[in-house]
Amino acid sequence: MSSAEVRTPTAGTAPHLPAVLLFDVYETLVDLSSLGTRFTEVGAVAQQARTWLTHLLLDGMALTAARAQAHFGQLAEATLRSHLEAGQNLSCTLDEAVTHIMGAFEELDLHADVTSGLPALAALGPRLVTLGNADAAVSERLFARAGLAELFEQHLSTDDAGMWKPSPAAYAYAAGRCRSRPAAMMLVAVHPWDINGAHLAGFRTAWINRAGATYPGYFHPPTVEARSLNDLAELLQS
Amino acid sequence: MSSAEVRTPTAGTAPHLPAVLLFDVYETLVDLSSLGTRFTEVGAVAQQARTWLTHLLLDGMALTAARAQAHFGQLAEATLRSHLEAGQNLSCTLDEAVTHIMGAFEELDLHADVTSGLPALAALGPRLVTLGNADAAVSERLFARAGLAELFEQHLSTDDAGMWKPSPAAYAYAAGRCRSRPAAMMLVAVHPWDINGAHLAGFRTAWINRAGATYPGYFHPPTVEARSLNDLAELLQS
Repeated sequence: MSSAEVRTPTAGTAPHLPAVLLFDVYETLVDLSSLGTRFTEVGAVAQQARTWLTHLLLDGMALTAARAQAHFGQLAEATLRSHLEAGQNLSCTLDEAVTHIMGAFEELDLHADVTSGLPALAALGPRLVTLGNADAAVSERLFARAGLAELFEQHLSTDDAGMWKPSPAAYAYAAGRCRSRPAAMMLVAVHPWDINGAHLAGFRTAWINRAGATYPGYFHPPTVEARSLNDLAELLQS
Repeated sequence: MSSAEVRTPTAGTAPHLPAVLLFDVYETLVDLSSLGTRFTEVGAVAQQARTWLTHLLLDGMALTAARAQAHFGQLAEATLRSHLEAGQNLSCTLDEAVTHIMGAFEELDLHADVTSGLPALAALGPRLVTLGNADAAVSERLFARAGLAELFEQHLSTDDAGMWKPSPAAYAYAAGRCRSRPAAMMLVAVHPWDINGAHLAGFRTAWINRAGATYPGYFHPPTVEARSLNDLAELLQS
């Protein structure tokens, strides 16, 4: 399916269909679970991958809350180094372990439902764009590797917005780059904090809830909730 | 030692001595490690306390990054409930477990160095104030219970600032309530993200590093680093 075929003249005209579907990247489309394997490959514990990612996210959020710019790659490497230093017997040097684990970002897989769900969403007509807090070039290579590159109009990073999501500036940047009103856009994400931030910035939102979790009451609820991208395509079509 | 005794006419006039020492509360003065015990008392795993507190902090940070107000108590209870629901055999009902663990906030101990270190800092002359992201009345009761209430001029909460630390608004609120210039104040905290936020808001900063950790390179460094409150008192005196 080429992008020329999916952008029909009716794009965005269905009552519930947004003109732009703006996708979060890590964990929403890209599966991070293989990072755990890399930890075991250097002699560390797989579960530490989750602790590390949470630490990285927390410090990035804290920079954003303080209105400062966070750099995903720099944060990822520095927090990884401090986690690996904190007491375990690696099977290689610390530098080798950091390089091995950071290298995983170039070889991540997409979630299983993305390969069929993304074309189903594209077929409905909206423009597809990504907005991640990490490097857009890295995500672009992952989608190219999965053969899905042509479905996307563009890949955006909050690096160019000056601040991470969920700051208002990050979502406003995406709307500007898409030359679209926020109300005509729908953010698609697995993280409730992203749904909340996009809602506050005037976007409609779709929460992808693959694990059947409960949405936290202290965040603004999503416009729609779906179990997968295919499920979302069905919801938006009806 | 009464507060009248410690506020000598020379307060704030020593070259390195701030007029106001503004203390973070949880983990900086108040020890949260006993929360783990409460988890085991309801049949849960002690280590889950850390995961829960990180989740609570992360979602509070995300609200702050989105320029929304976070309420510590509400976040604490909601995230606790979701952690306890996620698959373990509690020895009581979920409601009882939540009540038991939340009750711990009224009975937390201070870190061992606070009981002697806080009077040592007070003796140097600066005004002592707290600024936490949680309820100021709860912290006030903890300090009263520890017999240290009279050392403090006031207890502030970011509840009244409209936004959590590390937002600029939170520190500006504290400076306003203290009727002090930020540059005449020093934030004392264990969390590097708090040091970074206070620095960006114009405060001097003291990082209490009890565990001998490495300060992250992506945050602005503290003005001074100390291993304990007593250590900080010595540094500020010299």
